[in-house]
Amino acid sequence: MRLKNKPWALPLIEANPQYVVTEPQQYRGKWQERFSQDQPLLIEIGMGKGRFITEMARRDPEHNYIGIEVQSTATGIALKKQLEAQLPNLQLVCGDGGDLTEMFAPGEVAGIFLNFSDPWPKKRHAKRRLTYKTFLKQYQTVIAETGHLEFKTDNRGLFEYSLASMNNYGMVFDQVWLDLHDSEEAVDNVMTEYEEKFSKKGQPIYKVTAHFAK
Amino acid sequence: MRLKNKPWALPLIEANPQYVVTEPQQYRGKWQERFSQDQPLLIEIGMGKGRFITEMARRDPEHNYIGIEVQSTATGIALKKQLEAQLPNLQLVCGDGGDLTEMFAPGEVAGIFLNFSDPWPKKRHAKRRLTYKTFLKQYQTVIAETGHLEFKTDNRGLFEYSLASMNNYGMVFDQVWLDLHDSEEAVDNVMTEYEEKFSKKGQPIYKVTAHFAK
Repeated sequence: MRLKNKPWALPLIEANPQYVVTEPQQYRGKWQERFSQDQPLLIEIGMGKGRFITEMARRDPEHNYIGIEVQSTATGIALKKQLEAQLPNLQLVCGDGGDLTEMFAPGEVAGIFLNFSDPWPKKRHAKRRLTYKTFLKQYQTVIAETGHLEFKTDNRGLFEYSLASMNNYGMVFDQVWLDLHDSEEAVDNVMTEYEEKFSKKGQPIYKVTAHFAK
Repeated sequence: MRLKNKPWALPLIEANPQYVVTEPQQYRGKWQERFSQDQPLLIEIGMGKGRFITEMARRDPEHNYIGIEVQSTATGIALKKQLEAQLPNLQLVCGDGGDLTEMFAPGEVAGIFLNFSDPWPKKRHAKRRLTYKTFLKQYQTVIAETGHLEFKTDNRGLFEYSLASMNNYGMVFDQVWLDLHDSEEAVDNVMTEYEEKFSKKGQPIYKVTAHFAK
């Protein structure tokens, strides 16, 4: 989802380097320096307006969280949330999540969240989907041996594609949900802005958690 | 789906040994004898009233088909269809599909269809689901190296379970459908009796095709 550019966003980001990193390559292999405590690191690729990652960090102080977002306006909105919450275990990255291996050292990440990624519905754009094999290879590189990938979407075509892509890559499924909001796990599910809006229309939310085979 | 027992079914089956096999173990390794031509063999486990397998055999004369069903009344209804169609590439089995390895020699089967299998929703009954690992092991044994498994269901819980079970077993997904009737493949989809009834209520039909890793 592309937001209209807000002129306040970039200056706000620049004024708050304690919460937002704009050159993430500099912290490769030393992300723990950005946090008050050394704890397993969970990242969200494409955090949007940051509701999910902020709420996760609030509920779960025993992990460090990083939300990555390429759009400065969305990052700015996420930053406003963090300026209010002041969570010591949350950092934001304004930058392209594209090549994660330049941003994180092998095994530096304990888990990855992908929420409502761009579906890129045209076949010729399949390579841009965040569950395309080249992206899975990056996740496998940066994720620790015990790490998991959590992927949520309301887009049927993207989920169909992603199940096959993840399976074909050799990932091991922990659990699959075909209507997350009508499941036992709905109670603990942290919703994104987008998720709340679209699930109200009665569309099912799909989710899979998986890990890389040892 | 259990049908009310019809008294005519068993006598009809017994009167038509040219179409129905009641002791399938006798044909293990030599099923081709039952057909007028040697052709790759596709089987459906739990054919119900036989609409799917009869229509498949009619459309696709270049494969031999076997429909397996434990209930004699359902088999009798399927037999009536075959008595009318007289398809040379279709045989029926009235018997428990339970241990396929006693019924087929290793590699004897070119493909397996599972359509709307009993969901066994209680966790303690998971072992009875036809996508439980012990069943997958049987399929792997009887299916040829190039063979595929096709699984359709309207039951969300069973499909969620089956995707994880098949993935965890090491099966390779060819394609996943989360709303088969709203897909490009809907045109060629052969519906079971049950499928037509339930899809009319607007429930999505799920499907996965997969094969065993070489």
